[in-house]
Amino acid sequence: MAKRCVPVTVRWSDMDAFGHVNNVQVLRLLEEVRVHAFEDLRDHGGPSLLESGVVVARHEVEYLAPLVWRLAPVPTDIWITAVGGASFEVGYEIYDAVDGAAGGGGGGPAAGGERTVYVRAATTCVAYDLATGAARRLSATEREVLESWTDEPVPFRRRSR
Amino acid sequence: MAKRCVPVTVRWSDMDAFGHVNNVQVLRLLEEVRVHAFEDLRDHGGPSLLESGVVVARHEVEYLAPLVWRLAPVPTDIWITAVGGASFEVGYEIYDAVDGAAGGGGGGPAAGGERTVYVRAATTCVAYDLATGAARRLSATEREVLESWTDEPVPFRRRSR
Amino acid sequence: MAKRCVPVTVRWSDMDAFGHVNNVQVLRLLEEVRVHAFEDLRDHGGPSLLESGVVVARHEVEYLAPLVWRLAPVPTDIWITAVGGASFEVGYEIYDAVDGAAGGGGGGPAAGGERTVYVRAATTCVAYDLATGAARRLSATEREVLESWTDEPVPFRRRSR
Amino acid sequence: MAKRCVPVTVRWSDMDAFGHVNNVQVLRLLEEVRVHAFEDLRDHGGPSLLESGVVVARHEVEYLAPLVWRLAPVPTDIWITAVGGASFEVGYEIYDAVDGAAGGGGGGPAAGGERTVYVRAATTCVAYDLATGAARRLSATEREVLESWTDEPVPFRRRSR
Repeated sequence: MAKRCVPVTVRWSDMDAFGHVNNVQVLRLLEEVRVHAFEDLRDHGGPSLLESGVVVARHEVEYLAPLVWRLAPVPTDIWITAVGGASFEVGYEIYDAVDGAAGGGGGGPAAGGERTVYVRAATTCVAYDLATGAARRLSATEREVLESWTDEPVPFRRRSR
Repeated sequence: MAKRCVPVTVRWSDMDAFGHVNNVQVLRLLEEVRVHAFEDLRDHGGPSLLESGVVVARHEVEYLAPLVWRLAPVPTDIWITAVGGASFEVGYEIYDAVDGAAGGGGGGPAAGGERTVYVRAATTCVAYDLATGAARRLSATEREVLESWTDEPVPFRRRSR
Repeated sequence: MAKRCVPVTVRWSDMDAFGHVNNVQVLRLLEEVRVHAFEDLRDHGGPSLLESGVVVARHEVEYLAPLVWRLAPVPTDIWITAVGGASFEVGYEIYDAVDGAAGGGGGGPAAGGERTVYVRAATTCVAYDLATGAARRLSATEREVLESWTDEPVPFRRRSR
Repeated sequence: MAKRCVPVTVRWSDMDAFGHVNNVQVLRLLEEVRVHAFEDLRDHGGPSLLESGVVVARHEVEYLAPLVWRLAPVPTDIWITAVGGASFEVGYEIYDAVDGAAGGGGGGPAAGGERTVYVRAATTCVAYDLATGAARRLSATEREVLESWTDEPVPFRRRSR
């Protein structure tokens, strides 16, 4: 319920010499999704995390299928997986719906259908005080909004050793 | 012993609007380190992993201190943490030596000194057959060379939930 | 008449350490505009210039006002300024309408109002045969479609010496 | 005489899906060359143009031959073509020496040999006051140093209409 979908624009230049969206550029796409979701947070009465300061402390990314460049934006789910005192974790999934790349249309409910998942990822964000340059605690409002977005942990397939 | 140091050039444009090297660009730097190390592998009688095909299946990155742009390349250790039948894991550490950013000079051994670590990361690479577009097994030579580079697991501080 | 407007998405990361959209990333935005316009050409019965092969031979770019990052896409006009036997020139203007995207407000009709122009640019594209790796002549269909898009030369302010 | 050569590192990711260094990334390489030359200026007793503020007002770039990625840095000449009251023009040439970096062999002295030129470009830089956010005049020292670097105009092959 708390997941939201942010369609993200892939640039032609996100492809590398192998003709697929480069694995590093996938993180760039996720940054865009995060920026849009954080601004969306402000529109919903929350604080702007961009302005109040947030720093990336950790990324974990799993590439499940090659993402191919296309003109239409790619749907990406973004949600919160955990909220701590001074940090929170973001989950993402880049995918295509079962009936096609560009919004499908295709009638029918995807009964039994499964989405094609290209990427799953998690980011640990640490609240940061721009003035002092140090970590800070999340405000009550920030915690409240972030918790209202919380959903399942990212279902990673493999974990590093 | 098996770790090797690849100095990597940071571009001015790797900084983002916050004035630090952007977290996504850190992955770009690690890609460069990997490419140089893989070519180095060829020079030492091994295969060129770039040519025979390798795909990134997973990244895990931990940001420990802000990396600031400078003209001189930043030392980065790269090594292998595990070799499987069709994949292998790469470890990295971006750091500065204890006596300074640009190669120090400073005579003496850094007795008791510790390096400043900016980033630790791990990448899972899957061998890939460019012709068939499918995963493939590592060759005996590839395994041999990769195993000779093997060193400790990446000492991550925190793991995601 | 022949100019078309392609709204282009600016990424947060297009800003550099000075907090403005980096001058090089402006060229990246123009590449995206070009790619979208070229695909649009295909949709209108023309050839896909991306597939049949086009190479950039020259860019000229004039930066007139700092472009600031925002969530909403930035309107960009693109048109053709000249068509030759094996090449053609593209013109662009990145702007905000007078009561525009960034700050809007302004009620009044833009009677006599002027747009804020951030960038004007021109690109020389050379038709290219992907198979032979050599320049080629534009086909009759390509010329016809490109000519139907032709409009005024780019009104650059200053020229290099 | 006043031209200086700055070898610039090309990243694997500077290639696009066509397998050549992307035309926009060429501008990125030139930015790096400029940054290094400007810092070099400081080392020679001049001001740091990066710190005192310089803004790019115009680029003109000519692509003469495809630049292919390689591990070794690519030699790039940079020099000043004109100095005005509040601005100056930079010229560049990216090239390989006649018995050059990429494949060398050669042997013989380059008697009468010519370099392979990949790119020629010019950038107009405007002095900028970071505090007031407005253009400013070049200082006497800045003019003096820049004039000592002055050399021929960039020998562009074609000019736009």
